[in-house]
Amino acid sequence: MEAATNEKEPLSLGEIREVWPLLSMVDRIQAFELLPRDEAEDFFFGLDAREQARVVAGLPPREQRSWIRLLPPDDAADMIQAAGLEKREPLLAMLDEPTRLEVLALLAYAEDDAGGLMNPRYIRLRPDATVEEAIRYLRKQMNELPRTIHYAYVLDADQKLLGVVPLRQLFTAPPLTRVREVMRTNPVTIPEHMDQEAVSHLFAQNHFMALPVVDAEGRMKGIVTVDDVVDVVQEEATEDMQKLGGVAALDAPYLQIALPHMIRKRVGWLSALFLGEMLTASAMGYFEKEIARAVVLALFIPLIISSGGNSGSQATTLVIRAMALGQVRLRDWWRVVRREFLAGIGLGLVLAIIGFIRIVTWERIFHTYGPHYLGVAATVACSLVGVVLWGTIAGSMLPFILRSLGFDPASASAPFVATLVDVSGLVIYFTMAALILRGTLL
Amino acid sequence: MEAATNEKEPLSLGEIREVWPLLSMVDRIQAFELLPRDEAEDFFFGLDAREQARVVAGLPPREQRSWIRLLPPDDAADMIQAAGLEKREPLLAMLDEPTRLEVLALLAYAEDDAGGLMNPRYIRLRPDATVEEAIRYLRKQMNELPRTIHYAYVLDADQKLLGVVPLRQLFTAPPLTRVREVMRTNPVTIPEHMDQEAVSHLFAQNHFMALPVVDAEGRMKGIVTVDDVVDVVQEEATEDMQKLGGVAALDAPYLQIALPHMIRKRVGWLSALFLGEMLTASAMGYFEKEIARAVVLALFIPLIISSGGNSGSQATTLVIRAMALGQVRLRDWWRVVRREFLAGIGLGLVLAIIGFIRIVTWERIFHTYGPHYLGVAATVACSLVGVVLWGTIAGSMLPFILRSLGFDPASASAPFVATLVDVSGLVIYFTMAALILRGTLL
Repeated sequence: MEAATNEKEPLSLGEIREVWPLLSMVDRIQAFELLPRDEAEDFFFGLDAREQARVVAGLPPREQRSWIRLLPPDDAADMIQAAGLEKREPLLAMLDEPTRLEVLALLAYAEDDAGGLMNPRYIRLRPDATVEEAIRYLRKQMNELPRTIHYAYVLDADQKLLGVVPLRQLFTAPPLTRVREVMRTNPVTIPEHMDQEAVSHLFAQNHFMALPVVDAEGRMKGIVTVDDVVDVVQEEATEDMQKLGGVAALDAPYLQIALPHMIRKRVGWLSALFLGEMLTASAMGYFEKEIARAVVLALFIPLIISSGGNSGSQATTLVIRAMALGQVRLRDWWRVVRREFLAGIGLGLVLAIIGFIRIVTWERIFHTYGPHYLGVAATVACSLVGVVLWGTIAGSMLPFILRSLGFDPASASAPFVATLVDVSGLVIYFTMAALILRGTLL
Repeated sequence: MEAATNEKEPLSLGEIREVWPLLSMVDRIQAFELLPRDEAEDFFFGLDAREQARVVAGLPPREQRSWIRLLPPDDAADMIQAAGLEKREPLLAMLDEPTRLEVLALLAYAEDDAGGLMNPRYIRLRPDATVEEAIRYLRKQMNELPRTIHYAYVLDADQKLLGVVPLRQLFTAPPLTRVREVMRTNPVTIPEHMDQEAVSHLFAQNHFMALPVVDAEGRMKGIVTVDDVVDVVQEEATEDMQKLGGVAALDAPYLQIALPHMIRKRVGWLSALFLGEMLTASAMGYFEKEIARAVVLALFIPLIISSGGNSGSQATTLVIRAMALGQVRLRDWWRVVRREFLAGIGLGLVLAIIGFIRIVTWERIFHTYGPHYLGVAATVACSLVGVVLWGTIAGSMLPFILRSLGFDPASASAPFVATLVDVSGLVIYFTMAALILRGTLL
């Protein structure tokens, strides 16, 4: 009985935020409906598009309409996209006519386009209005404008963008000045099909609060505000990081994704890497006689190949992130090769020295590696330089190769590079052994 | 001669942005000084704090003062911090007295604190002012306010935050209403010592344009605006990704960091991993007799240990990113173990089946693995389930262990997990071999 009573007691906004991920959909809707309207609005705006779609779907039809109409066109478009194709028509039908047209236009953009991030509502001014007229117009329009406004945009009769006026400048200018005189010409603009990752670089570099989106003819289509960019930056970093770790992008929070779905996201790459790694068994088979003759060589195989994998993982991580941040471009490949060549030599030498000392010391203390231990130590040391250098070059160049072929450079995941380097690492190691140990151990 | 003439021709803003990273400091200053003042300002605001400090240092003293005074207090504090300790005093001396005090207060915050992101200038209103008075006050103050404003903050006589008024609401309210009646009470606030990563979650979740920073007594200290958060999100993601790839955070763009410095950032982890990986040589030494008796076992060593490393890399990447996004907290560890246990079993079984089929097929076609090939195939398959399961559990739990010990979970890099799993993978493999092949091959 007591549990039942507790269930009816409304949760506070803070409590709902806390327990939301743990509640069933029915309990979520119940808790949501018990919130006072203004807190419910705050909460609703804070949900991501998928959650908004689920909440709306759980409400009675009459309320659905009021919630979806609350969203600005860009957020409504995101929500309708997240709700899935079969719900698109009924949801669109709930919007008023002008918003429906705006949302339809937004849904036509690819998801990763600047156009998909854009809000089609913004403040338009004519260049020949006076500042006084502009302010009067502004105050009248405020209720229909986006929640946050920073700039007014000055358009000509063809909707072409002439300039931008920061609102602060508008409010402090003498009332009879023309808008044309206070506007900034040649503003930074975003082409409507620019990739959202490139959009986020523009914002990160320049600390803009909003940027205008224009089509190929320079006609204004809408604005992108910086608050939407924070999400994009998070999402893109998450995707890149997951790919780098050898997982397909999850597209949902870790604890919320269904287990079979998560296994599917991981099994693809894991199996592909496993198939690639099978080449090591073939390579090892090729050197089976050498191993039978000198088992001591087998002892260092994991050490050698993992060093190549680790140095490759470092290089590929650095290059992929630098590419994502726009710090390294395709045409920089030669500068990167030069740097990584020198870094690879340096890092390889450090590991070679540590490895050489380790083998010689162990032999002096434990007498484990036999009479030809110096040859073994030299083989391991030389292989380390070769393997680390190769790992570094392969790890840094793979993202360039993928990008120049039109693939996502982040697919050059650390495990992918490690697998690539494992096979060649074995070949380097046994070739060195043949060169150095021929006539003694082999 | 022609080259010399070209050098004097001023570059456009776009050209400077393009070639900036390639120019020497002297050429940068020269190009900067040739820009028209408004373009130079745009460019200067777009530079990061370190670059701003360098540009200011390169200008004549008189101009230095004008540029540093242009920056809002939070950006000035960032620049002074980036310029280094020895330049702190002379730079501070160039500020006007009130700004100097504000900047000093900001410099006292730890770099990763919310306080370090904060702008101490914002719009203050009294609760009993009328909307008309508030708007009049606002228009008068606009020139001294931050470049972008969204909300006015209502404070009592003790500087305690009573509520927030969106400017849009202020402009559309009836002129004689009291500010108290249009403000929103219980606004979301940021404690002054909140970590900047937590600050970025608040913004990412809720699409705020600015949030107020308060001290423990609820007194308003300043505001954090969303444009500064974009940088934080980028930076934190870069750091996490670099750590995940087994590199110490670079703290500078890839192509700009000096080569010896970059090698230092990589050699530490690489050597540590190498030392850890040496345990594989010891483990292999322990099984030397088994390898000598059945060389065929050696062939699958790279395959087995890399599968453990790859599955561990997937698990650690997913958990670290979910932790960074606040989706997984320390107390969720048991839910994560359960999921990863099931995922590890599933993934291990898939690889085991592929591996088993591969060995049996190869034997049928090439007759490479000898009469006991079914035993070998069974050993490999069982080891794969064990190694993948162990890699998955180790990779997902290591971030929890590190975090609960007070370390950064992102230090559980993919190569770190792979190294950890390599040694135990060998033990699992040879133990399985001893169990399954005793009496036949061993």
